[in-house]
Amino acid sequence: MPLGNEPPQLLKQRLLFRGRKFNFEINSLRLPNKSEGDWECIRHPGGALAIPVTAEGKLVLTRQYRFAVQGRLLEFPAGTVEPNETPAQTIQREIEEEVGYRANTWQSLGNFPLAPGYSDEFIYAFLATNLEAVDNPPEGDVDEDIDVVHMTCEEFERAIFKGEGVDAKSIASYFIAKPYFSS
Amino acid sequence: MPLGNEPPQLLKQRLLFRGRKFNFEINSLRLPNKSEGDWECIRHPGGALAIPVTAEGKLVLTRQYRFAVQGRLLEFPAGTVEPNETPAQTIQREIEEEVGYRANTWQSLGNFPLAPGYSDEFIYAFLATNLEAVDNPPEGDVDEDIDVVHMTCEEFERAIFKGEGVDAKSIASYFIAKPYFSS
Repeated sequence: MPLGNEPPQLLKQRLLFRGRKFNFEINSLRLPNKSEGDWECIRHPGGALAIPVTAEGKLVLTRQYRFAVQGRLLEFPAGTVEPNETPAQTIQREIEEEVGYRANTWQSLGNFPLAPGYSDEFIYAFLATNLEAVDNPPEGDVDEDIDVVHMTCEEFERAIFKGEGVDAKSIASYFIAKPYFSS
Repeated sequence: MPLGNEPPQLLKQRLLFRGRKFNFEINSLRLPNKSEGDWECIRHPGGALAIPVTAEGKLVLTRQYRFAVQGRLLEFPAGTVEPNETPAQTIQREIEEEVGYRANTWQSLGNFPLAPGYSDEFIYAFLATNLEAVDNPPEGDVDEDIDVVHMTCEEFERAIFKGEGVDAKSIASYFIAKPYFSS
């Protein structure tokens, strides 16, 4: 059965927080198995992510400060889908802002739910190739603290397997993309 | 630099929601790059996940209703780390509750951040082998709506690549675990 086809019955809806990128709701629900209760979740418009691969086969990543984990993670460029944007438009904007590249070839890799225990966010992943450097990259969010990192696949896999701060969406997207660019 | 080593300066802390499994906070922070503002996030004690592999090389998964995505996802058994539990203890409890197996061999696969844009949750992944069925599996949470599914690796990878509702933590953990059980 496709996702979205079994909505719970909404008994009461409470918006607890309205944010710039997502909301936080507490809802009283009756689930398909008839259990009733309050469930909390982040309502998120979705995230779009690119796996940029250079002509030399290197991955273009970000080393980004994340206050939630009090440190710097290794992530593929990604961003929140804005109103009136498709995920493809989002990631074409974000890849220029975050890593300073434009991609001439895009391949959709599908989508997956990120943290379904408490968020409705889906990640839309894309393979980005035929890269060209942007002369004057547009400014990203002022509060972002990001460095650009180039890595071989071997280096990136070593970081994943050693647990060196690669997040779930980047690990999952990398392995979904790998058959498309590895020989 | 290891994670957790660059805490932001906390200017003001507000607990907006205290839940059974996680809290939601809005904090005024000064980040290492000196930008100041309000950031929101879920404070989560962590999740523990098992990749159970049978003697026949089949994966044991759950098909679980998730209200946030209004449908059923394919996930490895997992659960929230409770107070006074280690992630290893959590997953030994959850694997019996969710799929009715006890594992006699455990291998830690490390951890990764799940949704660092708005959550401090880390997933602690374990490979679980030498499985034996539990005669009277303990009751799980009453509101859970879970079926147990056995799959070959080929079937599970097909579900991942076709985008058939496998979540990020299950995709990421599977590929981290794969070198340990595939020949």
